[in-house]
This record gives sequence, C-alpha cells and structure tokens, in this order.
Amino acid sequence: MTRVFMVDGNAIPVKKYGEKKTLRDMLKEAALPLIKRNSEISIDLVVVGNMAAPQFTQQNHLGAFLTTELALDGVPSLRVEAASAAGGASLYFAYRAIKSRLHRAILVVGIEKMSSTVTEEATSFMAAAADWEYEVQHGITFPGFNGILAQRYCYEFGVNPDDLLLFSVNAHKNAAKNPLAMFQKEISLEKAIKSPLVADPLRLYDCSPVSDGAAAVLLCDEETLKKTEVNRDNVVELVSSEIATDTITLHNREDPLELKAATVAAKRALKHAKITKDDINVWELHDAFSIMAVASLEALGLSEPGKAVDLAKEGEIAIDGKYPISTMGGLKARGHPVGATGIYQAYEAWLQLVQQATPQVDNPQYALTENIGGSGATVTINIFKKM
Amino acid sequence: MTRVFMVDGNAIPVKKYGEKKTLRDMLKEAALPLIKRNSEISIDLVVVGNMAAPQFTQQNHLGAFLTTELALDGVPSLRVEAASAAGGASLYFAYRAIKSRLHRAILVVGIEKMSSTVTEEATSFMAAAADWEYEVQHGITFPGFNGILAQRYCYEFGVNPDDLLLFSVNAHKNAAKNPLAMFQKEISLEKAIKSPLVADPLRLYDCSPVSDGAAAVLLCDEETLKKTEVNRDNVVELVSSEIATDTITLHNREDPLELKAATVAAKRALKHAKITKDDINVWELHDAFSIMAVASLEALGLSEPGKAVDLAKEGEIAIDGKYPISTMGGLKARGHPVGATGIYQAYEAWLQLVQQATPQVDNPQYALTENIGGSGATVTINIFKKM
Repeated sequence: MTRVFMVDGNAIPVKKYGEKKTLRDMLKEAALPLIKRNSEISIDLVVVGNMAAPQFTQQNHLGAFLTTELALDGVPSLRVEAASAAGGASLYFAYRAIKSRLHRAILVVGIEKMSSTVTEEATSFMAAAADWEYEVQHGITFPGFNGILAQRYCYEFGVNPDDLLLFSVNAHKNAAKNPLAMFQKEISLEKAIKSPLVADPLRLYDCSPVSDGAAAVLLCDEETLKKTEVNRDNVVELVSSEIATDTITLHNREDPLELKAATVAAKRALKHAKITKDDINVWELHDAFSIMAVASLEALGLSEPGKAVDLAKEGEIAIDGKYPISTMGGLKARGHPVGATGIYQAYEAWLQLVQQATPQVDNPQYALTENIGGSGATVTINIFKKM
Repeated sequence: MTRVFMVDGNAIPVKKYGEKKTLRDMLKEAALPLIKRNSEISIDLVVVGNMAAPQFTQQNHLGAFLTTELALDGVPSLRVEAASAAGGASLYFAYRAIKSRLHRAILVVGIEKMSSTVTEEATSFMAAAADWEYEVQHGITFPGFNGILAQRYCYEFGVNPDDLLLFSVNAHKNAAKNPLAMFQKEISLEKAIKSPLVADPLRLYDCSPVSDGAAAVLLCDEETLKKTEVNRDNVVELVSSEIATDTITLHNREDPLELKAATVAAKRALKHAKITKDDINVWELHDAFSIMAVASLEALGLSEPGKAVDLAKEGEIAIDGKYPISTMGGLKARGHPVGATGIYQAYEAWLQLVQQATPQVDNPQYALTENIGGSGATVTINIFKKM
C-alpha cells in the first residue's frame, strides 16, 4: 500500500471579495501557482471540496468548471460535499484514490464564495446542513444551534459564557500574524464581552464570519515523489484520513454536548497512524463557534468534560502551549469559507510541519485537522506527519 | 488488488411524487430493503450521488442525512456531485475506496427529488451544471444547448430532425415493460413528430422529463463476497469505473458535436477491463435528449459520425438489436432524476446481467453505463461483468 504525500499547497487570503473576485478568479489564484510550480507532476484526478456554490453563485458542477479553468484537459474531476466538512471529505476521497493505486497525483481544491449573497441568505444556505424537515423549517439556524449548545454547556458545567470568548481571543492573536487571515488583529476579552449577542449566550465574537476563500494542495504517491525534484524539506505525509458521522438532527443524540463523531474519527485516525494524541503537536480545530472549540477539545480527549476553558485560561491552547489550536487564526479569525475550510486546515498543517507558518509552532512532528459538517454530524480527521 | 462486486440493488419507481413522498421517504424506500436483505454485510462507507437537493429541497449534507435515516451509526458518508453524472461519479469513488482496501462494503445511493419545485425553477437549477458566468446568465438552458447541438448535427450531416425521435420511440418501447419507468407506454413516431417544439429542432418527445427517483446498490470486496451467503447468480463484477472531462463551456470545444469525454472515458474503461466494445451487450446511454443518444453512439464508436440514426432505423438499438440501448426506457421514458440516474443505470446493468430485467437482453455478459454531466463536460463510464 503506497504512502500518501502532500508536496505543496497554496491559498488566497480569506476575505469578503464581493464583486472584486469571481469564483473563477479565486480558483485560479489558488490553484494555478501550484500547478505551475509542480509542472513536472502529472495530475490525474481533481477533487473539489465545496458546500454550496450552486446557491451562493449559481454554479454547480465545480469539478468540470475547475478542470476547464485550469486547462487540465480530460482529467477526471468531481465535487465532494459534506456541508462545511467538504474540504476534509475531499482529502478523504483523494487519500483513498491514491491508496487504490489507480491515481498518482491529485489536486485537491477547497473553494467557497459566500459574500456574493446577502448575509440572511448565507444563513439559510448554511442551515441546509441541518435537517430541513425536522429542524430548519421550524426556524433554527447554525448560530441558533450553537447558542443552544453553549447555553446547555454553561448550565451543565457552571461555566461563565464570557470564558468561551477566550478561544476567540486566542484565535485573533494567531490571526494577527497570519497574512492569509481575514481579521489580522488581536482583540481583548473586554471588547469581545461587549460585542452584541447573536444567539444567547453567544456573542458576535464567538462566531466565525461569512467568508470567501480558496485553497489547494497537491497529493501524490511514493513513486511520483521519488521521481520529482521537489525539495524533501517541503514534503509532508498524510498518514490518516477518517470520517465518522453522528445524527444530522441534534434531538436524536444522547448527549448533544458530546461530539461523538469527532471522538470516533480521531480514534480511528490515531490508530491507523499508530500514534496517540500525545504525539500531535498542532491541532487545527473546527472552531466555527467558540463552543465548537470547547466541544472539540473535550471530544478529542484533550480535556475532561466541562474543563476545556481551563486550557484556554492556562495558555495551553496558545501557539507555545501544550495543545496549540487555531494556529493560523482558526475559523473565527482566519475566516470560515465553509467548503474550503478543510483544505485551508490541510495547507496550514503543511505550513506548520515544513516550518513556514506564521505564527510557527516549535518544531512540530504531527498535525491533526478536524473539519466538522453541521453540528458535528460529519467529522473528518486528517493527520499529517513531518518527513 | 481486490475485485469489486455488486451484490444487490434496489430502486423506487421513477415518478413526480410531489407532496406524496419526501426526500426522506424516497431514500428509505430505496435503501432500507437493501440493508435488510443484506444484514450480514457490514457497510463501512456510504456514498450519495446527488446533483441539487439543496436547491430542490433545501437539504444539503445528504451523507449525514442518509446515515442518520438508515441508522448507520458512525458510518462515514459523503455526497458526490458532478451535475447529472453524480450517480456515476459516486460509483467511481466507491470503486476506488474498495480498491484502496480501506473499505469492504459500500452502500451507494443516487437520489434526486425534482418535483417539489416548479418546472421553471428546475430548469434554472439544471442550468447550474453549465458555466454561469459565460453561458447561463445570458439565458441558455439545457434544452437550449441540446437544441443548438441538434440543429448543427442535422445541418452538418443532412439528417432529418424527425429521425432523432426514433430514439424516443425505442426508449418508450422498452419503458412500456419496465415497472420502474415513469412512462410505461409506447409512443408512435407520428405522435412524437406532432409534439410541441421545445428548442428547435427538439420537440417535447426528444427531451427527458423532470423526475424524482432514488436507487441504491451494494458493492463489496472479494473477502466480503466469500463470507456472504448471497446467491452467486445475483453477483456482478464492476470491472471498470472511469471519468473524463471536457470543457464545461460548449464554445471552448473544437467540435461541439463530439462527446470527447465519452470517447476518452470509454477507451480507458475498456482498456482497464481488457475488453473491446464488441464485448459489451448492453449499453445504458445518457439519452437525456435524443441528440445525446446520437452523440453517445458516435462517441463510443458504435456508429460513424452522422450515421447514428441509421442504427435506430435498422433496429440495431432495440432490445434484440446489435447495440441494445436504453433497455429500461432510457432517460427519456424511464425518467431522469438527475443525480440518481447513474445509480439507476448501474441497477439496470445489474438486472440485465443477472437476467431479472424486463425487457431482458438475451444472456448478456457485459453492460456499460454512460452517465453525463452538463453537455458532456463530465462523462463517467462504468462496466459491469456477469460472474
């Protein structure tokens, strides 16, 4: 069974581009430099992670759209969707395609352009990741779901909701140094606490923004790697790629505060990589809302239930902490172009492992990315290893 | 490298269900019997082929929606989209996932519910498979694209447009015997010629209908097959699964009448299966419009350019002809629930090979399914073999 390598990556700054850049522009800016830099590698499959381009931009069929635009004549392509876990799920497919030995080099692109629509519509397009019949048509949105979870969490464990904002403060601190981040500035806890309520107890600063982004990574098999002249210092191995699911409906779960799919997928991924969580040095978590950072830390076993804010208080989630999370600014401050997020995470894991990240974790050996679809209904876990 | 087997399949009748059945109802009716009948097989991945559920039904994230509804707790799932080739593209993924040896048994579901919306909206949702910026926003729709192609074809080769309707007459003849078909009745050429023009020269009877459908197939590896008690007479091998792409925009093609991606994908698939086109006994073509049956026959090398209608005139495309196509009624008369079509085709290939089809081709050994996204921008070719 061949190993799977990531030899390069590229991404555009996360922003609201509005009319300034089309889907096509974003795509080209993210993927073309990668193709040019690696022209000796013959791409034989293109996988696109995207959640909702047909709704945001009236453009479906992104696989063929992309191969056309990149002049990859005849190359097979398709789109993978798993709500906001579309990016992570694309890697899941690409990993298996290389393992099947039917492909040698795969371009994986994550793209989402959310800003071409008004925000209310964006909220409704996002809600399509939940169960329309049982949930959405009754009026709930994703900020609503996360507000409910945060409310319950704070009640259950006696946590002060203000403390959830510590995760946003940490995210912004990292984003301030990341040139690709949407909000390249630090925020104070005081300011965050004064931000308006969005879904009680969650405030504006607990929530990731509507964002546009496109990121691309290039995966290949052992034989392709052997043949290329790519600098070995820039090569990272994708050692595990797993998905687990939970019920799409929140009311079906025994304990809605448990991100069971994250626990299951991470367990599978660590086992497959033959490592434990203690081997991981960088944790790119799906912190679309502060409560999701909390739930993720607990689901991944980095904290006891109800204790995740302690990690934030003690600086353990900081870039120089025991469990550095959201190292590039997280979904809160780097931005969350939903279907692209999983590929941004992969690119950021790669940057950390090849030591080209800003901010940079000190000499990491393993990075884990967690990409969530819906309220934890789909969770993808990818683990990357330094060569 | 393990071989890939299809051990069972199931589908609901193709219809406009409107309010009578929800997406959830359709899904359960298609997939649950399959799971129950094969309860000894442990499904470890679910792949959903769907083109536009978020637009038609406001339900995205069909992977988790499906694993929830089928009570496949924790099982990984995701959705594959390649416009109306989503079904074929799902098989493409599942085939690679089994070949990777990371999965043993995969449920592949194709689903589309188009009738919950008015037809004008359906036409616009379908148009999202073309290039919005360069094509769709200027007003063209899929009947329009196909009308242009038919116009050019008839001009170029001196073909009478009425003769294109011979493909619809053949499709209806087969559909009359297929209990799952949307239009279970024969039509006369005279009646078809009198049907209203939709996009000159194409008439209503040249075009497939807006349809609802759900189909499911169960794939597994050699080891799983060995362990199961499934009746070997009902097992078929999936010997090849290929995709090729062409430009999403029609104006970028050298010759728009050439379905280049079909030619390329079929060539790869036949080579991989180590057979020639003469070994294929059943051809499930993507005849969404009569002109697409024509273009497919020519792209797959069954006819010289400009001569495909001769095959229809000579009865060679009939169930007892040299190249039986649309054996279950084709997209025209069986119906075309877009993202589900590729899985209906796979199910129908399976029915033919295990000799449970009505109408039935005489003792077929190989069946080929061609599933097209857009105007031939994505073409998937799957080849099935009798055991």
